[in-house]
Amino acid sequence: MYYTLLYLFVVTWLCPSNGYVYRTEYFDTKLDNFAFASNETFKLRYLINDTFWNPGRGPIFFYTGNEGDITDFAENTGFMWETAPEFDALVLFAEHRYYGKSLPFGNLSTSEPKYSGYLTASQAMMDYIELLSYIKVKYNATVKEIPVIAFGGSYGGMLAAWIRMKYPSVIAGSLASSAPIWQFTGMTECSAFSRVTTSAYSSVSPECSKRIRDSWSVLTELGKTDAGKAKLNTLLNTCKPLKTDSDVQGVKDYLQTMYVNIAMVNYPYPANFIGNLPANPVKAVCKNMLHTNETNESILSGVYNSLLMYINGTGTAKCFDITNDVEPFGVGGWNIQSCTEMVMPMCNNGETDMFEKSSWDLKKVSDDCFKQYKLRPSVNIIRDLFGGKRISWATNIIFSNGLLDPWSSGGVLHNVSKTAVAVIIPESAHHLDLRAQNENDPTTVRMARKYYKSVFKKWIQDFYSDV
Amino acid sequence: MYYTLLYLFVVTWLCPSNGYVYRTEYFDTKLDNFAFASNETFKLRYLINDTFWNPGRGPIFFYTGNEGDITDFAENTGFMWETAPEFDALVLFAEHRYYGKSLPFGNLSTSEPKYSGYLTASQAMMDYIELLSYIKVKYNATVKEIPVIAFGGSYGGMLAAWIRMKYPSVIAGSLASSAPIWQFTGMTECSAFSRVTTSAYSSVSPECSKRIRDSWSVLTELGKTDAGKAKLNTLLNTCKPLKTDSDVQGVKDYLQTMYVNIAMVNYPYPANFIGNLPANPVKAVCKNMLHTNETNESILSGVYNSLLMYINGTGTAKCFDITNDVEPFGVGGWNIQSCTEMVMPMCNNGETDMFEKSSWDLKKVSDDCFKQYKLRPSVNIIRDLFGGKRISWATNIIFSNGLLDPWSSGGVLHNVSKTAVAVIIPESAHHLDLRAQNENDPTTVRMARKYYKSVFKKWIQDFYSDV
Repeated sequence: MYYTLLYLFVVTWLCPSNGYVYRTEYFDTKLDNFAFASNETFKLRYLINDTFWNPGRGPIFFYTGNEGDITDFAENTGFMWETAPEFDALVLFAEHRYYGKSLPFGNLSTSEPKYSGYLTASQAMMDYIELLSYIKVKYNATVKEIPVIAFGGSYGGMLAAWIRMKYPSVIAGSLASSAPIWQFTGMTECSAFSRVTTSAYSSVSPECSKRIRDSWSVLTELGKTDAGKAKLNTLLNTCKPLKTDSDVQGVKDYLQTMYVNIAMVNYPYPANFIGNLPANPVKAVCKNMLHTNETNESILSGVYNSLLMYINGTGTAKCFDITNDVEPFGVGGWNIQSCTEMVMPMCNNGETDMFEKSSWDLKKVSDDCFKQYKLRPSVNIIRDLFGGKRISWATNIIFSNGLLDPWSSGGVLHNVSKTAVAVIIPESAHHLDLRAQNENDPTTVRMARKYYKSVFKKWIQDFYSDV
Repeated sequence: MYYTLLYLFVVTWLCPSNGYVYRTEYFDTKLDNFAFASNETFKLRYLINDTFWNPGRGPIFFYTGNEGDITDFAENTGFMWETAPEFDALVLFAEHRYYGKSLPFGNLSTSEPKYSGYLTASQAMMDYIELLSYIKVKYNATVKEIPVIAFGGSYGGMLAAWIRMKYPSVIAGSLASSAPIWQFTGMTECSAFSRVTTSAYSSVSPECSKRIRDSWSVLTELGKTDAGKAKLNTLLNTCKPLKTDSDVQGVKDYLQTMYVNIAMVNYPYPANFIGNLPANPVKAVCKNMLHTNETNESILSGVYNSLLMYINGTGTAKCFDITNDVEPFGVGGWNIQSCTEMVMPMCNNGETDMFEKSSWDLKKVSDDCFKQYKLRPSVNIIRDLFGGKRISWATNIIFSNGLLDPWSSGGVLHNVSKTAVAVIIPESAHHLDLRAQNENDPTTVRMARKYYKSVFKKWIQDFYSDV
């Protein structure tokens, strides 16, 4: 079992436009930033707003785009927009190569290694460095003169952290929100993600996660016989009848993903994920589960009610289609990244988590990757590139994590140096802090945002005094 | 006018074997470390000696190979060999891709961009990081357990500095000797290199550099007429008669290179550069020049005597061949690097230096590069990659420079942070400190080496305490 970070922003980036204003522009970037074998370039999209900017003193607020259409990130990073005027900042959102409109080879981009092979974090970051250099020239400013503050959430937060670590001359500091930079081999137990997911449910009530844990054996039991499968079809309102063991496993996988996704988007206000989820959706799931008694049928009705909330918020889903999980954006890109650099082991131990025991099978992942993309994962490349857990040399980074967020399992939860610090937001799910203010925001998120601004001021001051 | 760093090691690496013992091995490294477009690999040579090593506490002493055959660097970095036993260190010299026996495409390697294009500093450094990871696995040690101290001189020193800056989790600290990391556009005046070269001569006697400066107009004057050219042929014992203005310019260029090279190898003991140069060769040149009077003929005889010392140390040169400058190793590689990343502007202003005024003509350089290699320089790539002069974030680097070394013009001559410090060795030419001890070494070099060892101890201690 493994999750792609894609789920993260699926959760959060589907809001309608918030009316933020920007120009859409394109920058010619080299296909291979680290070689001169060809002069091939492609157009990288970026969004820019210079109306708040005071070039003499304002920084660049720079969003390090992650795995999706950059306009979605722009629409859903309200904190940058709300803070820019106060800082006289230039607002700049760069799209990650191979996503949105920044496809080097159009539809072929993710088709085979000769096209897909330039989709790496290092290449994307160098695109950003060259874009910043270009923007500074365009605005008649030199590298020396403008501090850049990087922002990012989830994989974008990983990029924000790494770009400061690799290019500290250009990036004065970074806000890396919900960035699981340690969700890699040898850095975090593979079961940690499921454990934290579980704790989001247990924190509502220990009974809640217990009921969910119980539900798997109910599914297993019913899945054993034809009569049981028929009952499952009825109880879960499946679109197609469950016929094989693999179908039953498919239901379980779907449900685990559902619990994870709901935990990520466990915001204190409704979010537009797969049809309007209510505020505090984990609570809603638990309410369903706690209404059950210990009979099989009752437990499955609790599961089904949560499933209904998850798939049918818009009221259009006629039935439960296990083959149709929610992947609204071009997941091709992230699948490629998962098969090369972004190898994040995930498993369940069934003890510290509420899921069925499952192992992380690198060989299977690797073979699947090869079969589908002719690629195989480089298990240690992220450690080699970015230092793994030995990063006390990092400076000027805020690693923020919500403890309700499954991805906090791979996040930086303690200060790694004097200025690379951890901010823990107990009541926050996945990068809530980057979103626009909301009256239902918990106090800790408000406090965090206030703290970020004081740190930004320090970074900018230090940047100008470092000559 | 521009110089390649190649000259540096031409000067110093031609000694006979010093009897250092190592095994020669090869490591499969990816052709493109930053992409997955192909699985192509090639064999990177490295030299290793584990006889001094105490795996429980000894570091890896790692030489970041530069532009040449790695065996020459191993033979000429006596400081590493002499210090390793005291530190229980593993000694490892890695060859730079595209040099020595580490040619990805054999003889074709530097022929055209599709082959030569993977010759970059970033690729070379990632080769080193992956090699270190491989060595640690081979010796059953994890990344966490072994501090690595990087050593390098000249371009190798640049790599030593940059690899610490980029991969501080792997590299505990670096000794970057005579590393002109600021000899790039926008960081150092193009005339600085010639100014420092001149100062090496002026420090013997201001009259010395004055006479050399005077010599150019003598050459110009004589070069104007056929009779004058004939006289030059005789006075300089040219192999082929000088016929055109371009021939006369060729003589001047050759001589400027000579003065530069002699300044670099201005060691207090004889060095094997182009036939045994004497100890303190700048003094020898000045002696020749100061014996002249102000007549044209006398000045040219002074020039000729220095030329004779420079080209005829082994007594085999029959005449002065201006087309045959000294480039003993595969300069193809460095020429490629000069045409992509290593764009180091050089010029003479004729006022603070003893040379004829000349400008840095990027367009010409670029056109020549394109003509010869189908490559064009990326003027700002080194700044973008490594931060230019804004590197106060760098830590655990010793930047050592000899003030007699022309390349100190682009070196780091002041502390950039608390632990990224400058060591100035007034009496040293080009990375004398990395060489084996010699009874004629100036006290400042001895002191520097002692200081380095105390710093290494601190780095190792800090590495082990950083968990």
